[in-house]
Amino acid sequence: MKRTRIERPDGRYVYFYSLGAEPQVSDVSAPVRKGEQIELRWNPLLDEQVIVSTARQERTFLPPPEYCPLCPTREGLHMATEIPAKDFEIAVFENRFPSFRPDAPEVSDDSPLERRARAAGVCEVVVYTPEHDATLASLDEGRLRLLVDVWADRYAELSARDDVTYVFVFENRGKEIGVTLTHPHGQIYAFPFVPPRAERERASSERFARDHGGCLMCEIVRAERARRSRIVTENDAFVAYVPFAARLPYEVHVAALAHRPSLLDLNKRERADLASMLRVVQATYDGLWRSPMPYTMSMHQRTSKGEAAVGDHLHVEFVPPCRSRDKLKYLAGVETGAGTFINDTAPEEKAAELRHAHAQWSAGG
Amino acid sequence: MKRTRIERPDGRYVYFYSLGAEPQVSDVSAPVRKGEQIELRWNPLLDEQVIVSTARQERTFLPPPEYCPLCPTREGLHMATEIPAKDFEIAVFENRFPSFRPDAPEVSDDSPLERRARAAGVCEVVVYTPEHDATLASLDEGRLRLLVDVWADRYAELSARDDVTYVFVFENRGKEIGVTLTHPHGQIYAFPFVPPRAERERASSERFARDHGGCLMCEIVRAERARRSRIVTENDAFVAYVPFAARLPYEVHVAALAHRPSLLDLNKRERADLASMLRVVQATYDGLWRSPMPYTMSMHQRTSKGEAAVGDHLHVEFVPPCRSRDKLKYLAGVETGAGTFINDTAPEEKAAELRHAHAQWSAGG
Repeated sequence: MKRTRIERPDGRYVYFYSLGAEPQVSDVSAPVRKGEQIELRWNPLLDEQVIVSTARQERTFLPPPEYCPLCPTREGLHMATEIPAKDFEIAVFENRFPSFRPDAPEVSDDSPLERRARAAGVCEVVVYTPEHDATLASLDEGRLRLLVDVWADRYAELSARDDVTYVFVFENRGKEIGVTLTHPHGQIYAFPFVPPRAERERASSERFARDHGGCLMCEIVRAERARRSRIVTENDAFVAYVPFAARLPYEVHVAALAHRPSLLDLNKRERADLASMLRVVQATYDGLWRSPMPYTMSMHQRTSKGEAAVGDHLHVEFVPPCRSRDKLKYLAGVETGAGTFINDTAPEEKAAELRHAHAQWSAGG
Repeated sequence: MKRTRIERPDGRYVYFYSLGAEPQVSDVSAPVRKGEQIELRWNPLLDEQVIVSTARQERTFLPPPEYCPLCPTREGLHMATEIPAKDFEIAVFENRFPSFRPDAPEVSDDSPLERRARAAGVCEVVVYTPEHDATLASLDEGRLRLLVDVWADRYAELSARDDVTYVFVFENRGKEIGVTLTHPHGQIYAFPFVPPRAERERASSERFARDHGGCLMCEIVRAERARRSRIVTENDAFVAYVPFAARLPYEVHVAALAHRPSLLDLNKRERADLASMLRVVQATYDGLWRSPMPYTMSMHQRTSKGEAAVGDHLHVEFVPPCRSRDKLKYLAGVETGAGTFINDTAPEEKAAELRHAHAQWSAGG
């Protein structure tokens, strides 16, 4: 894997990752970030940080293809894109509309109930391919394998930063969940704090280790493989299943069979198996209703600082916002106001549906 | 306030509340619930209960007005509605597609990581008016005042049930958040457990009381009134403000000025002030862009069992899913996968916008 780093006039970096030739970098003329409000505010009722980032309100919203900022910068385009090269394999750059910034301004509290913190950290965009209409499932295995290596490289580099506590790799797909750019891409948020979901998983794992010993996710994987009724598919190193208490109908978790705290702990074969599994899950989703399934995909790994906990175990969560082919599942009063999720379906039935879709896709159609 | 209770052939109750004449109850021929899966499943990773209720998948979805199940049952209609009367003021009935049921089946665990609990409890629908096209803001003050009394009556009766631990009053408004019936109505979920949001608020309040003494919400109200920049409006007993760390741009909290753990602790004047404040908030929202604002409204009160905690303080949260007039705020990877909210706006700016809309509405349009 080759890596080329360039810097923009506005200070943001761009990385190009490739297996083949390094990209020819063109003149960089990306626009410089405007002044904006960016800070963390503490919510005293819920004891959580909320990110306030006003520049994001202005982010590019569903542009026509010829204005796509994630395409390579080619002659004849209407503008320089965010990718200052005519061609590339995978590109990573600092988000122009970030939630965290390495140079985020210092802030101070207004009062004990109006506490702020610096929104330090990094927000990156990971562009999977120069092909505007590709999908994760349409990429060849080599590109997907490179993507896993890129994620691992970003995880390692961002984790090493002083201002980063947790590296969160994710992908939003589909305008149904508000995706503003359709070009295949994911994101990485390098948090200056451990976000609530990761904190809760860690607390649950620690409680489990204390009460029963061992890693909670290892035990969940064992239970799902024994039960079989919620498994969608598995390969040598990963299993995909609908969790017993899925919050949403088509939620699928992909977990490492062996105990692996992060991408950095996977061997080469396991990295290839992860790439292959992510491709299979997306192809299964897209085959279900023969249309692209919207989802959020998020990667759960160990925190970047401190010792690994006994329960840190790499898994990827796919959460489509659908409750059926033509109905979306919205977060309404019970989810928003009470924090409890209502699943209108039995996870075992949804797993059977997805197993069937997977079998059809495997059979070539 | 008069109250009439009737029972349906399928065992569900209907209450009619009125200030004037009691309704003439017609023959009841509502359909009986089908068999379905309904249970609580414990998510071991997040240590939370998820409701699995398969009957809900079949719930009535945006029917044409002549098929509205929340209209009174009148001659010439195509069916008997959920309201077995020709006219009424406010009606409350057990939801035909519930998440909790008094007669929910017994369940048992499959394994230590596949734990189930009985979905005992009650889900009620509260129909504000027989007028299909009314809104909270278009109801007259008397009806709204009656609505607050109905909520208080339901809160008291449901709280007294053995199987109920927390009574959650809420309203979903707008197809943007998946509302399936447009007739003005709210809901009440009488939970068999304390939901996560209520638990977190209680934990925060207890920590505050231990560290600083007193009630956290009392202190927040004091801070907002001192700051003024985030206040939308106030009356003698309630204040409406955009919280310092609002998760969503147009989030507004309505809190009692005095320390009141629940609706039952409000005196008559305060109940009238609450009714009036809810009406004003909705009118302000609807005036902002001159179109009905979608939102979830949820009422946060003390738990139904045990002593009131020092921090139990009635407040109502309005959470519109919008980030601007024409853009919705979706919960994507960072919210779903990491649990952190990104607010693209400054709460002080949104409060100023809403204050302006409120002033225009007060001035008559």
